Amino acid sequence: MKHFLTVEDMSANEIISLLDMTAYFRQNEPKISEQLFIANLFFEPSTRTKMSFTVAEKKLGLEILDFHAETSSVKKGESLYDTVKTFEAIGANALVIRHEDDYWAEELANVSIPIINAGAGKAAHPTQSLLDAYTIYEEFGYFEGLNIVIAGDIKHSRVAHSNIEMLTTLGANVFVTGAPEFIDETINVPYISFEQAIKHCDVLMLLRIQHERHNESFDISAYHKQYGLTIQREKSMKQNAIILHPAPINRGVEIDSSLVECGRSRIFKQMENGVFVRMAVLVNQLLQWGIINDYKIKKCANTKGEQPIRKVRTVN
Amino acid sequence: MKHFLTVEDMSANEIISLLDMTAYFRQNEPKISEQLFIANLFFEPSTRTKMSFTVAEKKLGLEILDFHAETSSVKKGESLYDTVKTFEAIGANALVIRHEDDYWAEELANVSIPIINAGAGKAAHPTQSLLDAYTIYEEFGYFEGLNIVIAGDIKHSRVAHSNIEMLTTLGANVFVTGAPEFIDETINVPYISFEQAIKHCDVLMLLRIQHERHNESFDISAYHKQYGLTIQREKSMKQNAIILHPAPINRGVEIDSSLVECGRSRIFKQMENGVFVRMAVLVNQLLQWGIINDYKIKKCANTKGEQPIRKVRTVN
Amino acid sequence: MKHFLTVEDMSANEIISLLDMTAYFRQNEPKISEQLFIANLFFEPSTRTKMSFTVAEKKLGLEILDFHAETSSVKKGESLYDTVKTFEAIGANALVIRHEDDYWAEELANVSIPIINAGAGKAAHPTQSLLDAYTIYEEFGYFEGLNIVIAGDIKHSRVAHSNIEMLTTLGANVFVTGAPEFIDETINVPYISFEQAIKHCDVLMLLRIQHERHNESFDISAYHKQYGLTIQREKSMKQNAIILHPAPINRGVEIDSSLVECGRSRIFKQMENGVFVRMAVLVNQLLQWGIINDYKIKKCANTKGEQPIRKVRTVN
Repeated sequence: MKHFLTVEDMSANEIISLLDMTAYFRQNEPKISEQLFIANLFFEPSTRTKMSFTVAEKKLGLEILDFHAETSSVKKGESLYDTVKTFEAIGANALVIRHEDDYWAEELANVSIPIINAGAGKAAHPTQSLLDAYTIYEEFGYFEGLNIVIAGDIKHSRVAHSNIEMLTTLGANVFVTGAPEFIDETINVPYISFEQAIKHCDVLMLLRIQHERHNESFDISAYHKQYGLTIQREKSMKQNAIILHPAPINRGVEIDSSLVECGRSRIFKQMENGVFVRMAVLVNQLLQWGIINDYKIKKCANTKGEQPIRKVRTVN
Repeated sequence: MKHFLTVEDMSANEIISLLDMTAYFRQNEPKISEQLFIANLFFEPSTRTKMSFTVAEKKLGLEILDFHAETSSVKKGESLYDTVKTFEAIGANALVIRHEDDYWAEELANVSIPIINAGAGKAAHPTQSLLDAYTIYEEFGYFEGLNIVIAGDIKHSRVAHSNIEMLTTLGANVFVTGAPEFIDETINVPYISFEQAIKHCDVLMLLRIQHERHNESFDISAYHKQYGLTIQREKSMKQNAIILHPAPINRGVEIDSSLVECGRSRIFKQMENGVFVRMAVLVNQLLQWGIINDYKIKKCANTKGEQPIRKVRTVN
Repeated sequence: MKHFLTVEDMSANEIISLLDMTAYFRQNEPKISEQLFIANLFFEPSTRTKMSFTVAEKKLGLEILDFHAETSSVKKGESLYDTVKTFEAIGANALVIRHEDDYWAEELANVSIPIINAGAGKAAHPTQSLLDAYTIYEEFGYFEGLNIVIAGDIKHSRVAHSNIEMLTTLGANVFVTGAPEFIDETINVPYISFEQAIKHCDVLMLLRIQHERHNESFDISAYHKQYGLTIQREKSMKQNAIILHPAPINRGVEIDSSLVECGRSRIFKQMENGVFVRMAVLVNQLLQWGIINDYKIKKCANTKGEQPIRKVRTVN
């Protein structure tokens, strides 16, 4: 039994299977009939991820233990390991954790209840990667041959690293673009110019400039002009190309404010999809660990042999 | 469809209809049979209003999304609009918002789920106004001709402004009193002396001295002597006159501590009523926006033609 | 009707009755069929106690009002009494309170809903005492004649004071040990050396060095060597002796980190038991105050005449 910590070791089949379960849950909301407790441990600020997990858990009929680090025994120096063991002892059936440390999961390898990674420093944010993938899958029906460009602060983005691995696994052509100082040299996909990116992408994945992680002064308006999605640039995108962004958005920095809700933006759609992706991840973990079985889910997702979204690729 | 932002544009009939629904809910607690999500977004400290909405929501069987601004993406600079759109995207069916800005609601005019104002700076706090009105209505059965005096820091009170409008609409004779520096000159009702107020009022609405909004040093004991409800002053009130206060109370400032729970105080009664008022407001919004219909409320309030509280005015 | 504030005034029979109810609840989880509201008011940081009450409440089917002091009207100067009266007014059926003041309960004597003490400064933490007792009872089946040693920062420990009273009432031989500066002279049980304690105890109750309550600099490694449970010392404990600790643990201070999960440690077992102890305390209070009766508990604990754990003492 494995914790859900990264998408990087998942096969294309495993990913597609989770995406199909997500699609199923959008239409058939299952309820778990047993009283199970999920502890949400967020050690970093979060609106979207935390509230999205909360909605997913409540839709599934799960009980939530809402941990607030700032008023907990962490204030008295208690470690992550001891905090996690405490939740295990008092009856949590699974844990959802976000923590600023890239490697927090390492010390938790032997915890005997499933752990779902809701963000690990700059290293991984697998449910975000899955909701990005789901949004693309819902739009196009396939990944093979899609030109997907990731633009922006790749060096500081937990999202970018996981996405590059996963989208490559799924068969997409992944590129990076943006200010050269934000490009991580360890990344193994082609760098293209921003103008090339705009013209040729099917999916433009904008990243957030992480002001709170930068020390140096930063010229926002110059950045927007050179590396932001301006009204002018948006016009030269392909007809069916879409825009993704993990949010929170810096309006007027990585994207012009008026484009946030434009026709090709799937930014709020991503958030909507996130709830169903997290339902799929939660159910999948609870099933894999034998905590629930099919009979405990009133309406159970049955995706055997079905591919409700998958289409044959017809357009390049 | 309108958000619930103020009582100032409501007709007397609309208000009385909500108060009658409140009275009905005190005796018949309805449950909404569908799983609906209400997000409580409190950007300012609150005990009463937040917990009162929480109880109202749980009594109705609604799911709560409990937003904590201090551990949210607001810390990363996310705007109120983007925060609200996020909750809409992840599946909130309605929003309850308190924010320190007087005009926060303006940028949310086009949000496509109902918004309930739980406090807007100094400008409006409509559910507080309604619970004040309900407490008076429960006591007297009518508003016409009642002498209602609002005493205290009117300039800084979100409650006072809404109440003056609403109580005038309902037919009461509204007056203001208190330290002249706390009187807002834009207010259009008569100022009377504190001694006059005490003697002639049917309802004395005390306001809170908002220490946290005042910069200057402030002589509490002098204020209490001159403008506070002292044990002596309380004795000269009319036999059936009642005392209201929105709380939190500054004991020994606007009111002598021993009077907080005296026979004519309705201060804790107001809090009790607040829960049912908020149930009425929530149900009313969900009905108006077509999110629920009568069939989704197990025991539905039917106030057509009934006026369970309304009495003919017999005493001045 | 009494609030649940201390174990010090409880008779041995009353305590054993609660422990037997706890044992029953471990195997038969009752649900309260009526919608009741429990407000959790924690004015001090807590993970274990707060989350343990939360799980207990959810297992019983109780609704939770989760109070956050830091975003409440306490910020505007509202007193504990007025905060408590507010929760009573809005419909709380019982209160669970932790507060840093030793004597907070005194001003709440006349509150008309049951109050459960979840920690009062250094003075009392009765549900912790009960879960310690339950863990011993589950292990040995009796208290009479057991050698129980409390080791460590007794002066600053809310746990120690209550435990000494209660365990003496239950018939155990209670001793204290540890650094002399941590021993409270008002305590009426024998002080023994740490080496004696290790050799003769059946139960070693380690306390936490409360760094956050000490001002002076403190030599951790010297303390561990002299008064900590080292790997060496653990080897000279009696075969069936067990280790307790209320946590959070200072690993490497009062106990070697590798012993936290050793065979004789019941530290995480204590946390597990805490949930069921709190279920028993909650149900007991709700029954005593007439808020629920047996018919409102679907599967009701019936411990009359049964002593599911109690054994005849056979070993000293």
